[in-house]
Amino acid sequence: MPQYKAPLRDFRFVMNELLDAPAQLAQMPFYQDNETADADLMAQVLEEAARFVEGELLPLNQTGDQQGCQRSENGDVKTPDGFKAAYQKYVQAGWPALDADPQWGGQGMPHTVANAMLEMMNSANVAWAMYPGLTHGAVSALSEVGSPELQQLYLPKLISGEWTGTMCLTEPHAGTDLGIIRTKAADNGDGTYSITGTKIFISAGEHDFTDNIIHLVLARLEGSPEGTKGISLFLVPKFVPNADGTPGERNGVVCGSLEHKMGIHGNATAVLNFDGAKGWLVGEVNRGMNHMFIMMNAARLGTGLQGLGLGEVAYQNAVAYAKDRTQMRAEPRVNPAEQADPIIVHPDVRRMLMTGKAYTEAGRALALWLALALDTEAHHPDEAKQKEAADTVALLTPIAKAFMTDNGFNIAVQSQQVFGGHGYIAEWGMEQFVRDARIGQIYEGTNGIQSLDLLGRKVLMDGGKKLQALAGTLQAFADENEDDEVVGEYITQLGKAANQLATLTMLVGQKAMDGGEKGPDEVNAVAVDYLRYFGHVVYGYLWARMAKIAADKVVAGQDQDGFYQAKLDTARFYFARLFPETKSLSQTIKAGGESLDFDLKGMFGFEPEHA
Amino acid sequence: MPQYKAPLRDFRFVMNELLDAPAQLAQMPFYQDNETADADLMAQVLEEAARFVEGELLPLNQTGDQQGCQRSENGDVKTPDGFKAAYQKYVQAGWPALDADPQWGGQGMPHTVANAMLEMMNSANVAWAMYPGLTHGAVSALSEVGSPELQQLYLPKLISGEWTGTMCLTEPHAGTDLGIIRTKAADNGDGTYSITGTKIFISAGEHDFTDNIIHLVLARLEGSPEGTKGISLFLVPKFVPNADGTPGERNGVVCGSLEHKMGIHGNATAVLNFDGAKGWLVGEVNRGMNHMFIMMNAARLGTGLQGLGLGEVAYQNAVAYAKDRTQMRAEPRVNPAEQADPIIVHPDVRRMLMTGKAYTEAGRALALWLALALDTEAHHPDEAKQKEAADTVALLTPIAKAFMTDNGFNIAVQSQQVFGGHGYIAEWGMEQFVRDARIGQIYEGTNGIQSLDLLGRKVLMDGGKKLQALAGTLQAFADENEDDEVVGEYITQLGKAANQLATLTMLVGQKAMDGGEKGPDEVNAVAVDYLRYFGHVVYGYLWARMAKIAADKVVAGQDQDGFYQAKLDTARFYFARLFPETKSLSQTIKAGGESLDFDLKGMFGFEPEHA
Repeated sequence: MPQYKAPLRDFRFVMNELLDAPAQLAQMPFYQDNETADADLMAQVLEEAARFVEGELLPLNQTGDQQGCQRSENGDVKTPDGFKAAYQKYVQAGWPALDADPQWGGQGMPHTVANAMLEMMNSANVAWAMYPGLTHGAVSALSEVGSPELQQLYLPKLISGEWTGTMCLTEPHAGTDLGIIRTKAADNGDGTYSITGTKIFISAGEHDFTDNIIHLVLARLEGSPEGTKGISLFLVPKFVPNADGTPGERNGVVCGSLEHKMGIHGNATAVLNFDGAKGWLVGEVNRGMNHMFIMMNAARLGTGLQGLGLGEVAYQNAVAYAKDRTQMRAEPRVNPAEQADPIIVHPDVRRMLMTGKAYTEAGRALALWLALALDTEAHHPDEAKQKEAADTVALLTPIAKAFMTDNGFNIAVQSQQVFGGHGYIAEWGMEQFVRDARIGQIYEGTNGIQSLDLLGRKVLMDGGKKLQALAGTLQAFADENEDDEVVGEYITQLGKAANQLATLTMLVGQKAMDGGEKGPDEVNAVAVDYLRYFGHVVYGYLWARMAKIAADKVVAGQDQDGFYQAKLDTARFYFARLFPETKSLSQTIKAGGESLDFDLKGMFGFEPEHA
Repeated sequence: MPQYKAPLRDFRFVMNELLDAPAQLAQMPFYQDNETADADLMAQVLEEAARFVEGELLPLNQTGDQQGCQRSENGDVKTPDGFKAAYQKYVQAGWPALDADPQWGGQGMPHTVANAMLEMMNSANVAWAMYPGLTHGAVSALSEVGSPELQQLYLPKLISGEWTGTMCLTEPHAGTDLGIIRTKAADNGDGTYSITGTKIFISAGEHDFTDNIIHLVLARLEGSPEGTKGISLFLVPKFVPNADGTPGERNGVVCGSLEHKMGIHGNATAVLNFDGAKGWLVGEVNRGMNHMFIMMNAARLGTGLQGLGLGEVAYQNAVAYAKDRTQMRAEPRVNPAEQADPIIVHPDVRRMLMTGKAYTEAGRALALWLALALDTEAHHPDEAKQKEAADTVALLTPIAKAFMTDNGFNIAVQSQQVFGGHGYIAEWGMEQFVRDARIGQIYEGTNGIQSLDLLGRKVLMDGGKKLQALAGTLQAFADENEDDEVVGEYITQLGKAANQLATLTMLVGQKAMDGGEKGPDEVNAVAVDYLRYFGHVVYGYLWARMAKIAADKVVAGQDQDGFYQAKLDTARFYFARLFPETKSLSQTIKAGGESLDFDLKGMFGFEPEHA
């Protein structure tokens, strides 16, 4: 069975040494009032969280994959053995409320802490973690735009974990393109709506954890315009609550089937049939797409954390195997008495392990940086700081989603490779990590869509302002450390890449402007490569900063266990072996849309209708 | 259900226009005598093969994955529904004997044709294709080093497909490192040996297709030296044949269990327990490792063809889906009457499709080039040509195995991405291609081992002679075409990369020499990146050559259906978007072993015994 130990030491390093999170949070009245910004308290919570995920969730990961979920004829769903009991413990311990607003029963801990816990949950059992995970989006949307009545009725139960939430967006013919959904809402004239349609790919859409499930559903109100401007957001409970808040009448939403998937077998991916189900409007009519993005942004960082968590656990198991499995000889031999040496002595094995370590640790730094920015955006007393944090969140969320899930999948694949043939059989659990990690690149907006969001919307649409702000942050760090003995070399590499990123951005922007109606194609043609380039600039910045902190500790003789030297060596590996991907990306981005301009009929036998 | 149409047009292009295979083969008396080197005959055979794989194998691919193989208590194995019947048709039609020696009942067709058919079989149903596929290795080994008695008894039945063969190498503690296997052979003094031990991961190790299975088994004869120099190869039949060749006494080899795997569920991956099983020596005592490599080289190209075939079928399905699935708008609209346009209009979708096309078509060219080299090595009347072909096979086999399976897996992943969420559910079959493709990177020597074979053994060990011969081939093509309007630009890029490959080779070679006993670590640290660089040089060469042929046709107005223009556009895409990976690889190879040199204790908590 796979093993997992929460990376508590690294969480402390990132939170306390890299981000200085306790001091940052202490500036915010919200955390002062709730007394939740204390470094010791945060560390204790994470230790407790680690005990929970290692003890309760990890043991269910492989069995959950093997059993999957079972739907009975009436549409009920049975989750794998132990899943429900683990959820009850999770709720009893108060974990669902960790970073929620005390106004609704939350504990008011920083997102920084909650996101660290989410990484751990994803490492231990991503299929299980999705049940409570989806609730976060519903809570965000209701908190921000729900009516006071809906908030009072639903938020306490969602936050306590008594009920869970879902996001119902996709339909059979409409995934990326939500403007063409067909689910309809009819106004009942009594403050409720009647929702009819079919939603697919609904994660945690039906289960046996709780006695109610609260669906947030995109639908088109009768008479609303076509396209994205005619879509509204509705709350549709599985059971319509009674006046006292207990689940009442069964609503007209039923699980029609469960999907058979490549992975995350333990999570029920439901087809939900809404047949005149009673719903309540959330937010404003025809503003559903905007409200949906509140949920979506939370879900995107959450998905990035799946890539991070799965990369971490796959990496940890590859390290353990590489230390244990003996095969071939090293010079000098490290196991002279035995027939072979542990495979960790072979540089190619170390290369695979280090790829996991370098991406995962930078990913953790990015995820917690973003989480701290979310805390700052929500609670900083200085409005300029809020705005700055909001821009950071906007700019880096697509990178966190796409770069972290792409890297997470690749780490899972490379970690599986360390096991040789044993990685391909189910017993060792490595192939499950690969299957489970694959979905992160696809859902909550494919990584292609994330790339378009980054380059088209977040960078070009505001004239590069957010990008320039980030460049300023990098420049400030560079100015301060460019002569540093250890970090100076990384800063040189980073500076070149950051300048090149600016040049490439201008190049693509210019081509897009020159392209007229075909201009968007120029963005579309290079967006994925652009996001990857951008990701390396962000990770390069984080590795340079982490190396600076580590170098100071090593020089000061404060590195008893080699933790800081390992950080330094990992930064060195990152800049030597992973960061150079930017060299290729620079060239492919320059190649641009022209490389994809050809006759679709000759190439693929495709004939457009209008031709 | 996934669809598949054999790429017959592209087979003809590669065989006839790129490789001029019929004329080359016609120079060899073997094919003259057998009258099998005729272009029309080869094309007809491939058409017939296409009908077989499309009609008989493709429909069993998804059901085979869902059902898997079942082992009963006595060790018998039931393959998925329809698998056995399809095999019987395959045998009745004479397909197993396609490229086998007429001396043993073979049809004497070129390997070039047989390898094209193998690609198709792998596209349609890789799990099924492995049953007859493994027999090839056994036939090769027996043909080359088997005693006349063994040849007469076994070759006709293996070649006709009446019986199948296996390769039994791996043991629980020994995969890459076969020198430490524990399976023992005792001399019975009557020309037979008694084999005892456990072999794992034996593909097609037990099944219900045939009434006998012939295992080729590595074991250590009592009294033989330790390590690889004490290993011999034995033939162990499941049933010991009677004098008349019918299966007789049940031998002491039993399937102890089947592995539960990530993919290739339709193929039985057996644990085989040998308990005093009767065996016969194949070749010479203690030369088993050498003899094993006869099987292994066939298996390596065969594995490369799995990557190729799976890439092709995944790509084909992604193209079909991208033409059919409508989502978002293009400018100009191609479906003005409908709500959305087919996703093939989006450049990022085209990028994913083109990646599949560019790698697959170059892979097909490499595979058939290698197959023709195998034909030449075996049958060319000129010994110098034989030697040249043998060197080509030796140099390019690790590239065919590793580069083609890595690309095949990546194509399957990208093609799955084109489907969005629908790619993740089993129904569409895309996730099966990903799971099935993953094993090719692992077995028959992991791709890391292939890389070491290429850089350490094939390039550095002979002082770069084989590499120089290949460079000469590239140079000759470059000299002839460097001023060509279309291809000149590609030749410039290719020439720079080829020069850089030579420089990198010398750099690594020098470091390895300077490194003393740690020298091999320098090779180990960069071999994977080196193989990928080398692969791009080979594919770049093939794309430049294909582009030259295509350009001539286009200029001559001989491109009615756009086939040649598509080749030209694909070459352009390859050099613009894929070949630039060499830029990064060059840098990471230069970084070398120093990037992986650190304290294993601080980094991974690893403490060598000798420390």
